[in-house]
Amino acid sequence: MGLSLEKIPIQERLGPHEVRIQVTGASICGTDMHIYHWDRWAQGRIRPPMTVGHEMCGTVIETGSLVQHVHVGDFVSAETHIPCGHCRLCKTGKMHVCANMKILGVDTEGVFAEYATIPEIVLWKNDTALPVHWASVQEPLGNAVYTVMAANVPGKSLLICGAGPIGVMSVQVARALGAGPIIVTEVNPFRMEMAKANGADYVIHPGETNAREAIMDITRGEGVEAALEMSGNEGALHLALDALIPSGVLSLLGIFPGAVTLQINEMVVLKNLTLFGIAGRKMFETWYVVQSLLNNRRVNLDSIITHVLPLAQWQKGFDLMERGECGKIVIKLQE
Amino acid sequence: MGLSLEKIPIQERLGPHEVRIQVTGASICGTDMHIYHWDRWAQGRIRPPMTVGHEMCGTVIETGSLVQHVHVGDFVSAETHIPCGHCRLCKTGKMHVCANMKILGVDTEGVFAEYATIPEIVLWKNDTALPVHWASVQEPLGNAVYTVMAANVPGKSLLICGAGPIGVMSVQVARALGAGPIIVTEVNPFRMEMAKANGADYVIHPGETNAREAIMDITRGEGVEAALEMSGNEGALHLALDALIPSGVLSLLGIFPGAVTLQINEMVVLKNLTLFGIAGRKMFETWYVVQSLLNNRRVNLDSIITHVLPLAQWQKGFDLMERGECGKIVIKLQE
Amino acid sequence: MGLSLEKIPIQERLGPHEVRIQVTGASICGTDMHIYHWDRWAQGRIRPPMTVGHEMCGTVIETGSLVQHVHVGDFVSAETHIPCGHCRLCKTGKMHVCANMKILGVDTEGVFAEYATIPEIVLWKNDTALPVHWASVQEPLGNAVYTVMAANVPGKSLLICGAGPIGVMSVQVARALGAGPIIVTEVNPFRMEMAKANGADYVIHPGETNAREAIMDITRGEGVEAALEMSGNEGALHLALDALIPSGVLSLLGIFPGAVTLQINEMVVLKNLTLFGIAGRKMFETWYVVQSLLNNRRVNLDSIITHVLPLAQWQKGFDLMERGECGKIVIKLQE
Amino acid sequence: MGLSLEKIPIQERLGPHEVRIQVTGASICGTDMHIYHWDRWAQGRIRPPMTVGHEMCGTVIETGSLVQHVHVGDFVSAETHIPCGHCRLCKTGKMHVCANMKILGVDTEGVFAEYATIPEIVLWKNDTALPVHWASVQEPLGNAVYTVMAANVPGKSLLICGAGPIGVMSVQVARALGAGPIIVTEVNPFRMEMAKANGADYVIHPGETNAREAIMDITRGEGVEAALEMSGNEGALHLALDALIPSGVLSLLGIFPGAVTLQINEMVVLKNLTLFGIAGRKMFETWYVVQSLLNNRRVNLDSIITHVLPLAQWQKGFDLMERGECGKIVIKLQE
Repeated sequence: MGLSLEKIPIQERLGPHEVRIQVTGASICGTDMHIYHWDRWAQGRIRPPMTVGHEMCGTVIETGSLVQHVHVGDFVSAETHIPCGHCRLCKTGKMHVCANMKILGVDTEGVFAEYATIPEIVLWKNDTALPVHWASVQEPLGNAVYTVMAANVPGKSLLICGAGPIGVMSVQVARALGAGPIIVTEVNPFRMEMAKANGADYVIHPGETNAREAIMDITRGEGVEAALEMSGNEGALHLALDALIPSGVLSLLGIFPGAVTLQINEMVVLKNLTLFGIAGRKMFETWYVVQSLLNNRRVNLDSIITHVLPLAQWQKGFDLMERGECGKIVIKLQE
Repeated sequence: MGLSLEKIPIQERLGPHEVRIQVTGASICGTDMHIYHWDRWAQGRIRPPMTVGHEMCGTVIETGSLVQHVHVGDFVSAETHIPCGHCRLCKTGKMHVCANMKILGVDTEGVFAEYATIPEIVLWKNDTALPVHWASVQEPLGNAVYTVMAANVPGKSLLICGAGPIGVMSVQVARALGAGPIIVTEVNPFRMEMAKANGADYVIHPGETNAREAIMDITRGEGVEAALEMSGNEGALHLALDALIPSGVLSLLGIFPGAVTLQINEMVVLKNLTLFGIAGRKMFETWYVVQSLLNNRRVNLDSIITHVLPLAQWQKGFDLMERGECGKIVIKLQE
Repeated sequence: MGLSLEKIPIQERLGPHEVRIQVTGASICGTDMHIYHWDRWAQGRIRPPMTVGHEMCGTVIETGSLVQHVHVGDFVSAETHIPCGHCRLCKTGKMHVCANMKILGVDTEGVFAEYATIPEIVLWKNDTALPVHWASVQEPLGNAVYTVMAANVPGKSLLICGAGPIGVMSVQVARALGAGPIIVTEVNPFRMEMAKANGADYVIHPGETNAREAIMDITRGEGVEAALEMSGNEGALHLALDALIPSGVLSLLGIFPGAVTLQINEMVVLKNLTLFGIAGRKMFETWYVVQSLLNNRRVNLDSIITHVLPLAQWQKGFDLMERGECGKIVIKLQE
Repeated sequence: MGLSLEKIPIQERLGPHEVRIQVTGASICGTDMHIYHWDRWAQGRIRPPMTVGHEMCGTVIETGSLVQHVHVGDFVSAETHIPCGHCRLCKTGKMHVCANMKILGVDTEGVFAEYATIPEIVLWKNDTALPVHWASVQEPLGNAVYTVMAANVPGKSLLICGAGPIGVMSVQVARALGAGPIIVTEVNPFRMEMAKANGADYVIHPGETNAREAIMDITRGEGVEAALEMSGNEGALHLALDALIPSGVLSLLGIFPGAVTLQINEMVVLKNLTLFGIAGRKMFETWYVVQSLLNNRRVNLDSIITHVLPLAQWQKGFDLMERGECGKIVIKLQE
C-alpha cells in the first residue's frame, strides 16, 4: 500500500523563491523503503497522497520571481533538508539541523516525478560534465563524507561497521582521504564483496570471526583510532566502542531499531572517547567536498551505483533494495 | 577494613627518576571513599597493605640520580596518572590515557603519609605563593577544567548536572571562562547552596521542578548549547541529552552505577550531538590552565574547600564526605 | 567636506526583504572618521551624497512583503556586512567575507539618520532589556569577541597591542573568557587608564619600558601564549611576534598604514606560530556570543561607552574621536 | 672546507638513555648542503670537527642502562629534534619546538657514519618490512605531512608553491589525503616533471604563465582554499596570499633568504586568512601518520627517491643536490 505510479497535474504557480526542475535522475533511499512498506514511522509522518523521493538531479526549467542564483538550463541537485533560514541553528552554520526543518519528499512533495518544485535555498549547481547517475546520489555520498570527516581519518586506522550503500561509499571516501588500514565488518556476502572491491583493506564477518580479536591483531593490540557506525546494529556499536583505542572517535550514522544499552563508564567515559551523532550533511560545506571528490575523480561512483533503471521499472528497484543485493539504484527519468 | 593510621618505614632508596616528597597537604577523593568502604571495586583493585591517597602537595626533600627538573626545596603537586612514556598514547599527547597507566595511591604507594615517593614525570612545580590547601586540590580542579574546556563553553548556555565538589569547581571554571547562563541540577540542599554561591545563574532540583521545562524556559525554547554530566545519574544523562540544542556538546565525567539505556537515535544521532568521555586531565595542558586560573585568581577555591583538618582528624574528613555535607576536604600534614 | 546634517526624504517603498527601522542609537566607528576626513580611501569608495554610519540599534516600523523573522515593534541591531547569500563563502558559514559583500553606510545608505532601510538578512533581534547604548555598539564588540576567540584565550597569558575602543573591549572580553595574565601595550595615557580600569593585569607603555623584557619577566621567560594586534602599528606587530612563545597564536585586527616587513623565518615559520587575519564578525556565531556576554552581564559596556550624545551634538562626537580621548561614543536619536 | 670522509673512533660508553645504532641508510637534507658549503649559517652554528647528517635508519646494537622501549635488533629511524622533555612546550605536546632543543647532526654528532649514538626519546621503531631507503626519508616526509595536514586539505583545492623534494612529497601526501585540484608552481623543469608524475593536477611555471590568472581559471574565479609555501621565494608567498579565497589557509614551510614585505591589510587581515608557520614535525603524531601512509602504501616513495648511493659516492650525492636534478638521495651504509 505504499507506492504507485500515477499521473498528476504539475504545480501551477511558483512561489518567489521556488524553482521548477525537470527531473533527470532520482535514487532510492532507505527512507523511501520505509514509506514503501508503509511502516509505523511512515504512517505517523507521511500525509498521502503525495509524491515521495528526495535524492535527485535535473534541469531548471522555470524560476520564481526572486530566485537569483540558479537559472533556466542549470543542471542541479537538491539537498533534502529544507531549512527555515532564520533560527539560531540556521544562523550559526547548522542549517542541517534547523529547528523548523522540512524534509523533501517526506514533509513536502518529492522528486520521483518528471517535474519537481524545490526551494532555491536547497538547490546545488552541478558541473555540466557530471554523469546523471553520479549527480543523483550526492546526497547519500554527502552522508558518507560528513560521517568520515567528523572522524578525522587521514593517516588513521579505521573501522567501518556496515557496508550498505553509504557504508561502501564511506570506504571509498575514507580511502580517498588517506585512512589506513580500513577494516569493515558486514554479514551480507554481496556487501562484503562490495566493501572489498571499493578499497577496504580487511573485511570481517563478525558472525564467523571474532571481530574484536581480528581488529586487535591488525592494529597490534592498540585498537583502531576511528570508527564509523553505519549498521544500526547494537552489537556493532558495542564492537566499535570496544575496538577503539582510548581517546578514539566514533561517528554514528546508523539508525537503531530502538534504545541501546551501553557500559558507558568503561566504553565511553574512562576511555576518553568522542562520539559524533551525524545527521544529514553540512550545508553546504559537505557538498563542496563531495563536488571536489567527484570532479577530481578522487572517488568513483560507478562501482557503487549497481543499477540504473528507467521509471517504468521503479518497482524492480524497490525489490532489489529489499533483498539488499545492490549498491545505489538510480531511476532515470529522461533519456 | 578500609583504612587505618599506621607507622611504617619510609622507602629506603630512590630509583634514578624518583623524588621523595615531604607531604604538606593531601585531599580526599571519591576514589578514596571506595577504598574506605572496601567495596567490590576496591577489593578487586587494591593490594593491601598499602598507603592510599593521591591528591597532594609537598616539598621535594631528595631526588633520584637522573632527576633533572625538580630540585630539593621545590613546592610540588602530583598528577595521579603515572604514564609509561613510550606507548602510542604517551607519544601522541595522550599520556592521561596511557596504555600502561598506573594510578598513584591505587596501583602504587600513595600520599596520605608524611613522606611519599613519586616519579619525576608526574610532578608539577607550584608557584611558591600558592596556598597549600589550594595546591592540594589541583588534580580535581583539573578534572573540572578538562570537562568544561572539552565542551567549549565561552559565550554558551551551559547545563551542569551534579554539584559535588568537582561539579561546583566546574561552576566556577565555567563562569571564569565566560559561559552563560549556567544552569545546575542537584538534589542535595547543601550542594544546591554551594552551586549558587559559586556562580550558578540557576539551580534546579529535578525532583521538585520539571527540569527540562525550566531549562527550555531559560533558553527560550532552544535548549542549552553545552552540558556537563557530573552526577553519574542516568536520569541526569537523559535530561542533559534531552535539554541540549541539536549540534550541542556533552562532556561526561560522572561515573554511573552500571550500564545505561539510551534512545540513541533521537537523543544522539539525529540530534547531531557530540559526546566527550572525560578521563583525568590532559598532561599537562590542563595543569597549565589550572595554574593560570589560580595564579591570576580567576577562580577562588576558598569557597569550595570547606574543611582543612589535621592528620589526626582524618576520620572526620571521611565522615563528612560520607554525608555529602562538604566541598573538598584537605588534610594538612605539616604546620 | 566630509559630513553635514541634512533633511532628506525617506525611502518610499521597501523591497520584499527590506525592513524600515526607526533608529534609536548609532555609534561612531573609525570608518566614519575616514569619511569625515574625506581621505584617499573615502574618496575612492564613497559615492556622495549619501547617509553614512553603520553601528546602530532601533525599532522595526515596517517590513517588506517577504520578511519573516522580524516584526513591527522588534528592537533590533544590524550586522554591517551585507552578504549575497549565494556565493561559496556564504554557503559555507563565511558570510562575513562574502565575495559580493556590501557594507552598510559605505556601499549602501547608512544609519546616522532617524530612519534606515536594512535588509532582513543582517538584522539582529535584541533582548528588550538591553540598554540602547549597549545595543548600538554590539558590532565593534563583535570584532573584539571574534578576535579574542580566534586566539583561544581561556587560561592563557595574553598580549593585547593597542587599547582603542575595540582593544579595551577585548580586555574585558578576554577577562570574561578566562585569559590571564592580560598584558596591554599602549602609548595614549587616556587609553592606558581605560585598559587598566577594564581588567588588564599589566599595562605597558612601549616607549617608556622595554616591552619585550617586561613581557618576558611576567611570563618567566617563556613569552605569551596568545596575542591580539589591535593597533595597526608595525612595531607592535613585531613585538607581538617576538613576545609569543613558539606555537603561539596571533589574531590580527588592526589595519596598518601600508605594507609591513617581517623576519618571517625567525618570527613565524621556525617559531611554528599561527596568525589569524580577522575581518568583521562571524555571522552570526559571534553575535550569539555577544548576546550571551551582554545578557548575562559577563561584560559591562558602561566603562567603555564614555559618551552618549544627542544628534544635535554629532560634531562633538567626531571631535572627541579625533583627539582619542574617549571610548565608544553613541548618538541617541530618540529620547 | 665543508665535509670529508674520515675514520674516527666510535663513542665508548653509552649514557643511561642512549642507544647505539648501526646506520643502514642516511639521506641528504638541505641543511647538510649549507654545512657542505660552509656558509654563514653553518659557520655560526656548527662546531667542527663533527659528524653531520640527521635523516637516517639503522639497527639497534646496544642500549643504555635505562632504555626501555627499543631493543637490540630493532629497525629504527630518528626524529631530528632532540627535546629536553621538561619545558612547557615539551609538557604540552609541542616537543618539536622545545625551548631547549638540540638538532641531531647540527648540535650533536650526526648520522653520516657507520655507527651513531642517539637518545631513546627520539627513536622511532620501523615496521620490519619497510624498505631501507623509505625508512631513511621519513623525517622530510614528516615535514610534508605536517605542512599538508595543518592546511586541512581533504576535498579542497590546493596550491603548492615549490616542488623540491618536500614539495613533491607534499603533492603525493595531499593527493593521498583527498585534496583536489592540486596546483603546483615551479620553475625547474626537472621538478615540474616530478610534480606531474607524483599526482599534481596542474603544474604552472610562473615565469611563463600568469600564475594568478591560471589559478583563478582553474578555481572558477574563487581562488584556492588552501596553499603550501615550500619554495622560500617571496614572489611565491605573495602569489599564495593573492590566490587564496578569503578565509583560506596557508602553511609556511619554506625558508626565505631574508625579511619579506607584505601588504598585510589586503593579503591577510581583511582577507580573514590563517597562516601556519611549520617547524619540524609533531612528535610523534606526524610520525604515526607517516607510518600509516607508508605501511598502507597510500604514498609511494620510489618515485621521489631518485638516487640510492653507496657511502663511497657520497660526494656525487651532494653534487646532484647542488644541481637540483634529483628528488631525495639516500646513502646506503650497509649492503
